[in-house]
Amino acid sequence: MPLSEFALIKQYFQQQSVSRKDVNKGIGDDCALLTMPVNTELAVSTDTLVADVHFFADVDPFTLGHKALAVNLSDLAAMGAIPAWVSLAITLPQAEQAWLESFANGFMGLAEYYDLQLIGGDTTKGPLSITVTIHGHVPQGKSLRRDQAKPGDWLYVSGTVGDAAAGLAQLQQKLQLVQPEYFINRLQQPSPRIMVGAALRPIASSCIDISDGLAQDLQHILDSSGCGAVVDLEKIPVHEHLKDLSFEQQIQLALAGGDDYELLFSVPEEKKSLLQSVQQQSGVPLTCIGRLQAGAPTLTFKHLGQPQQLNLAGWDHFTS
Amino acid sequence: MPLSEFALIKQYFQQQSVSRKDVNKGIGDDCALLTMPVNTELAVSTDTLVADVHFFADVDPFTLGHKALAVNLSDLAAMGAIPAWVSLAITLPQAEQAWLESFANGFMGLAEYYDLQLIGGDTTKGPLSITVTIHGHVPQGKSLRRDQAKPGDWLYVSGTVGDAAAGLAQLQQKLQLVQPEYFINRLQQPSPRIMVGAALRPIASSCIDISDGLAQDLQHILDSSGCGAVVDLEKIPVHEHLKDLSFEQQIQLALAGGDDYELLFSVPEEKKSLLQSVQQQSGVPLTCIGRLQAGAPTLTFKHLGQPQQLNLAGWDHFTS
Repeated sequence: MPLSEFALIKQYFQQQSVSRKDVNKGIGDDCALLTMPVNTELAVSTDTLVADVHFFADVDPFTLGHKALAVNLSDLAAMGAIPAWVSLAITLPQAEQAWLESFANGFMGLAEYYDLQLIGGDTTKGPLSITVTIHGHVPQGKSLRRDQAKPGDWLYVSGTVGDAAAGLAQLQQKLQLVQPEYFINRLQQPSPRIMVGAALRPIASSCIDISDGLAQDLQHILDSSGCGAVVDLEKIPVHEHLKDLSFEQQIQLALAGGDDYELLFSVPEEKKSLLQSVQQQSGVPLTCIGRLQAGAPTLTFKHLGQPQQLNLAGWDHFTS
Repeated sequence: MPLSEFALIKQYFQQQSVSRKDVNKGIGDDCALLTMPVNTELAVSTDTLVADVHFFADVDPFTLGHKALAVNLSDLAAMGAIPAWVSLAITLPQAEQAWLESFANGFMGLAEYYDLQLIGGDTTKGPLSITVTIHGHVPQGKSLRRDQAKPGDWLYVSGTVGDAAAGLAQLQQKLQLVQPEYFINRLQQPSPRIMVGAALRPIASSCIDISDGLAQDLQHILDSSGCGAVVDLEKIPVHEHLKDLSFEQQIQLALAGGDDYELLFSVPEEKKSLLQSVQQQSGVPLTCIGRLQAGAPTLTFKHLGQPQQLNLAGWDHFTS
């Protein structure tokens, strides 16, 4: 039963519980009007999820709503920014009430958790896709960047990596995992590391979130900062339920899998000791996996001290 | 010849000539980092254009790039905001160099004109669509809104209305116009009324841009402001080359056509005289087409003083 475009938007997205004081005008005019806190920078990021490219068209709409927002929150986390406002552009083949309600619940539930207010967007007819633009605040000059890593800094990763790729392989019946729900959940409802990112602001020299796979995202840090890195394969934190897989499979999932939305960051020697309290406060393990080194922006892998050649197929929409 | 995703973005969108001092970090990190001027509000708007819904898939990519940005600039104009930053999310079936170059030229050319910096976005594979999120500034508390119109205020429109709908009818061979290029250009490369919007800030009591058709957009003002309106059909500014059409056709194009991106606004009696200098400075004619009245938010049409019943089919993606 199709509703009109305007009624649709109102019904599912205007009834949010978040009502921030810095939103002078939310949904319902040509633009939203917003007030920035003093001495902060505005952090903005945009991500698009396309059906049959980034997700299965028949995916549970609740998890899709959650993920569409989570991947954008993860970009804020990687800068050490605090979420504030979000725009949602959704393109749908038809306006199906049950689908929209479930999608909105997934999206708005996560938004509420972070006191993030939906300030506008667009609803259009067409092939299913979702574009989210997120806005956050970071104290002036204090953001985490990709381009400030230095040779000698230690390389860390939050949580475990490869879980989302394992979840995808499980859904595609390429793997039979012990606890499949955990991995599918990691794929479909990733946890943006907002608290970790904010806590790392005075500690990390660079930071990125792992969306395309650890190896490819690390390469972005190396290219931006102009240094190399050695990664010790045996140190990479892989979930205990993946330990039955071959070492090669584990490494492939962890380095090339993507979609984990953990943070990859560098820490100068003298600040390593500060990480313990971040770990305790956030409850997220932070694992040292290697070190940055002077020289060309190349990535060297070692296993128990021995150099390793790896063939990793990166995630790239137009060449894969 | 497909390029990698990252190379694509770099090649066509990173080489912009606009480099604003308030962009601390543009494209190339997880988020853009931006500084707001003091005593301003941030104005944000998002619009999506979908192939075969909002434009023909084989449209000239230069005009598509222009229009995708122009419709968002028009939302800023309607608030009286000044453009600052823009994010572009583009979904493409394949990465075709000539297409992308032409699209980028259309988009970036208009951005340059307004000193608008591209600060990020996303490039994904899938059915062709474009989502633009635009950011502008407006002096604190001085924005134009939909909800501040008062009974007795006069109703104005900028430029001429119905031109874009006439251009579409020409392309669909439903009309044979005298100067078809003009009307097709109005459809494909609308001029956002940024200068007019900014100049109206101290004058207009409400404002909206005409994207869905004059009647439907006026209804948004009436609903938001809680008053009615009388529109005098003979006063509606229609282009001289449409005067050969029947009066009914002219009115249908002007009221229900949409896509004109002119401004529709209300002005209190005591401020009418200020409009002359806005008109002179901007070079855009501003025409009084009616008046707001107390009562229910209903729209009354009159022709030479006589009430008229009109059947206008509004533009709504899910019910049309």
